[in-house]
Amino acid sequence: MQTRKGQEIEDESMQIIESEIGSHTFNEMEWPIVRRIIHSTADFDFARENKLLFHKDAISNGINALKNGCSIVTDVNGVIGLMNKQNPKDFGNNLICNISDPSLMESAKKAGKTRAQMSMRVAEKEIDGGVVVVGNAPTALLEVMEMVREGLVKPALVVGIPVGFVSAVESKDELSKTDIPFITNIGRKGGSPCASAIINALYKLLRQGIN
Amino acid sequence: MQTRKGQEIEDESMQIIESEIGSHTFNEMEWPIVRRIIHSTADFDFARENKLLFHKDAISNGINALKNGCSIVTDVNGVIGLMNKQNPKDFGNNLICNISDPSLMESAKKAGKTRAQMSMRVAEKEIDGGVVVVGNAPTALLEVMEMVREGLVKPALVVGIPVGFVSAVESKDELSKTDIPFITNIGRKGGSPCASAIINALYKLLRQGIN
Repeated sequence: MQTRKGQEIEDESMQIIESEIGSHTFNEMEWPIVRRIIHSTADFDFARENKLLFHKDAISNGINALKNGCSIVTDVNGVIGLMNKQNPKDFGNNLICNISDPSLMESAKKAGKTRAQMSMRVAEKEIDGGVVVVGNAPTALLEVMEMVREGLVKPALVVGIPVGFVSAVESKDELSKTDIPFITNIGRKGGSPCASAIINALYKLLRQGIN
Repeated sequence: MQTRKGQEIEDESMQIIESEIGSHTFNEMEWPIVRRIIHSTADFDFARENKLLFHKDAISNGINALKNGCSIVTDVNGVIGLMNKQNPKDFGNNLICNISDPSLMESAKKAGKTRAQMSMRVAEKEIDGGVVVVGNAPTALLEVMEMVREGLVKPALVVGIPVGFVSAVESKDELSKTDIPFITNIGRKGGSPCASAIINALYKLLRQGIN
């Protein structure tokens, strides 16, 4: 929910982005998503050097799953913190982030995994048919891909847009070569504001009846 | 708290940043803060085009206030979501974010303010002597500066690093010309990962006994 003033600021921002973006190759479902990322980061690289990549079924799959009340599993609380909470409330989507679960530290140590990896393992039930959103930890993204390969889960959509210097590029490159419905990007940049912008934009498309 | 594997990934990232940064003008207290922002965003612009700016007393003031158990007031929950929670727990810092308070919408409308502005107004007591962290809303930052001008509050530190196309640049430019102890940056970029990176880095300096 926004005040009228807040909405005016958003509208003006979107107009500035439209006037500065120049030519791009995104289609009419992809562009509102990329535009919202640029709005959240003030970084046009997400349409250029760090370009977004969309699996052909990603947007429609994601929208349908959200509409049908799927769970949303995130790697960090920051993704949830930046989401518009009215959306999951209205469509009955559970928001799940296990990273701060006190028991996770111990089980991660035992398994020689990062907490981020373990936080995905324990969300197996919700990931299956759900929307996975990785904004921070490449290891979480790699773990979800591994769970798909093991035949344990079939997510409706994997948003994989971790940021960083170690494994982020590689994990996103790997995701972009799978047939998992994905939204990802090229390069090191990304992060939870990008991840939540994608989810907020998907809900906007859903409310507009686009899928 | 991190697993050993998580710490290794962080160490490797920091080494990559050190090897790629080249020459810069930050001093030995500023650089760990800038480096952590680059670590969180994979964006070297925060040392260049969108350079961080530090008031001369900002870091020492911030560290001292945190050590003495001040409150931390943020504009969005995303900043809190990305913070290492063990730190405020250990040093007794209350984390305050009023943006989702249901009563805020109504009072903001009445006052013709954004929710972000109103969320700062209602935190007057905690802002006085506290650390303010604005990662998203320029209007929140402008409101805090207004509250200082009105003589209502004297924050120990204002971290003003909102992102965006409308008023972000101007609000940060204005902050950088005040004598409020500030950490801010040039340009449109910024956001809650930058904001929380700054706070996490301040706690790290505090734990190292630097101030």
